[in-house]
Amino acid sequence: MAELDVDVLLLSVGPDLPYLTGYEAMPLERLTMLVLRRDGDAALVVPRLEAPRVTERPDLFEVVAWDETDDPVALVARRAGDAAVAAIGDRTWARFLVDLGASMPRTRFRKGSEVMGPLRAVKDDAEIRALRRAAVAADRVARQLQAGEIPLVGRTEADVSKDIGRRLVAEGHDHVNFAIVGSGPNAASPHHDATDRVIRANEVVLCDFGGTMRDGDVGYCSDITRCVWTGGVEPPPQFRDLYTVLHEAQQAAVDAATIGTPCEDVDGVARRIITDAGYGPQFFHRTGHGIGIEEHEDPYIVGGNCEPLTPGHAFSVEPGIYFAGKWGARLEDIVVASGAGPDALNTADHALVVVDA
Amino acid sequence: MAELDVDVLLLSVGPDLPYLTGYEAMPLERLTMLVLRRDGDAALVVPRLEAPRVTERPDLFEVVAWDETDDPVALVARRAGDAAVAAIGDRTWARFLVDLGASMPRTRFRKGSEVMGPLRAVKDDAEIRALRRAAVAADRVARQLQAGEIPLVGRTEADVSKDIGRRLVAEGHDHVNFAIVGSGPNAASPHHDATDRVIRANEVVLCDFGGTMRDGDVGYCSDITRCVWTGGVEPPPQFRDLYTVLHEAQQAAVDAATIGTPCEDVDGVARRIITDAGYGPQFFHRTGHGIGIEEHEDPYIVGGNCEPLTPGHAFSVEPGIYFAGKWGARLEDIVVASGAGPDALNTADHALVVVDA
Repeated sequence: MAELDVDVLLLSVGPDLPYLTGYEAMPLERLTMLVLRRDGDAALVVPRLEAPRVTERPDLFEVVAWDETDDPVALVARRAGDAAVAAIGDRTWARFLVDLGASMPRTRFRKGSEVMGPLRAVKDDAEIRALRRAAVAADRVARQLQAGEIPLVGRTEADVSKDIGRRLVAEGHDHVNFAIVGSGPNAASPHHDATDRVIRANEVVLCDFGGTMRDGDVGYCSDITRCVWTGGVEPPPQFRDLYTVLHEAQQAAVDAATIGTPCEDVDGVARRIITDAGYGPQFFHRTGHGIGIEEHEDPYIVGGNCEPLTPGHAFSVEPGIYFAGKWGARLEDIVVASGAGPDALNTADHALVVVDA
Repeated sequence: MAELDVDVLLLSVGPDLPYLTGYEAMPLERLTMLVLRRDGDAALVVPRLEAPRVTERPDLFEVVAWDETDDPVALVARRAGDAAVAAIGDRTWARFLVDLGASMPRTRFRKGSEVMGPLRAVKDDAEIRALRRAAVAADRVARQLQAGEIPLVGRTEADVSKDIGRRLVAEGHDHVNFAIVGSGPNAASPHHDATDRVIRANEVVLCDFGGTMRDGDVGYCSDITRCVWTGGVEPPPQFRDLYTVLHEAQQAAVDAATIGTPCEDVDGVARRIITDAGYGPQFFHRTGHGIGIEEHEDPYIVGGNCEPLTPGHAFSVEPGIYFAGKWGARLEDIVVASGAGPDALNTADHALVVVDA
């Protein structure tokens, strides 16, 4: 905060608060906010009825409970003092920032991620262990998919999505964050919502799923994508070619994720291979995102991000190739940058597996 | 917007966007934002990779997809024109408001709920039917609890919470929003997180649960609280007395919820009965909250809210009495204000039911 000239950090809903205090704010209309002054003590402002949820940590913060007819924004503004610069948690609801802006007219607001992002982006050994544990559990579900243990043909995407979710929990996740199941033409929609489309034989099924596995006060995320081809029959050569390019691009990007390499260069490696093969316009998203207690966080593996990789950076490498209305594929691992070279946490088969399921 | 002098409405994550457009923004770091100008057309700014998720409605809005290296905030600012006043969706992430504030330095930002709150608070007949459908489904789970069909003694709160969640889904909810299970002393924590505490015989179990039931493009919420006493034995007279007061207060507050009555008066009715019985300090939260596509929305049944009830207002009436470290109770129904008098959607037994479960 001193380096950034930030006088006070204000954290509400989202992962920054549990990362620092172990307490997660309820995503409701009553304001919870940690007021952390650079030059003073920290206070956790919470609704009175939620105060019993807080595990008190008097060494870390004072608990300030507000009553239903109190004005919590005024309370926060008073505690924040006459801060010239406040950093407010990225996911804080805008309604509170609007009100804080009115109550603190001389304060300039910056994004909380300017303070918290760099702290969270570099994982220590315990965090890497937690990420690996989550990745290994997600791998087990991916292997079940590839082994044909998850029925596909004749089921709806939504059914398979729920099945994958149950398996993530069975393998140790505490909750499911998402389970994209895109079959046939739906595989061309990168953030597809699983629908009631019935999966057929002889088509691609793109499965991108992840959950959170608790580790002490917080939880660490998994995120993996594998594609399978249904029906026990070989995919057409066109799709084989697409997948071969994708596989090569993904592997090359993982290999390129060495210490000191700018994030955008990792993106560039995948993009060049895909573009050289003629699929450039069909790869229309970044190559990856950081991962930790949040599914998406710093560092982003995207053009324009010149930040060099540092030991402890953890991120996805997930190029994709999509033809609208036809098909698509994506291949994703979580990778940790380390002095010994890129450490890919996911090891489930990277090939396009043909399943009779 | 004209009445409020709002030039542009900016909606992102949260329920306002699907309420107006049928499209729900993904709660991720890539900005999705509806730019709705008072004097112009509407544009839905979405990340390119999520554009395939949007059901296009050219009659309602234009879809503007942005690429990974574009600046979506600049795009929104340009579309918003030189608005003097912008209303920004309440749940929009603060990081986007910080950036929009920098890109639109001459714009004053107000809360989106100033525009959307009054629209959403008054339910039409179809919305009331949807709320009733959800309430009736939640009632069925409450009746299972009261009939002793949900095993309690010997199970953890967390197990029972999951069981209630499964039953909400089995009864037709599309997802579970929360299932508070507070046993014994934990019933004194109004927003208690279900723990691994094992439920015993001869204690109170407070269950407060709700989910969302889809209805077209959006979903409507249920929310009900019932308390049971475990072990098949009568509760002690002290607890009986507490519950009798609570029951009377809740019923009186429901009866007071007539058209034209200020919201705070409904709160006052419950509070007076509880206070007169000597439990005033133990009732430390408001009496209720509006409900619709969001679990908590306008109107709030709380001291200081002078807004008179209008036909179509839907809200919870849920007083509680809590003794920290000992026990607690709450009783909650969803009520719709109507010309024919208060319409309580929940009808599960309001008595303190003794269960042998």
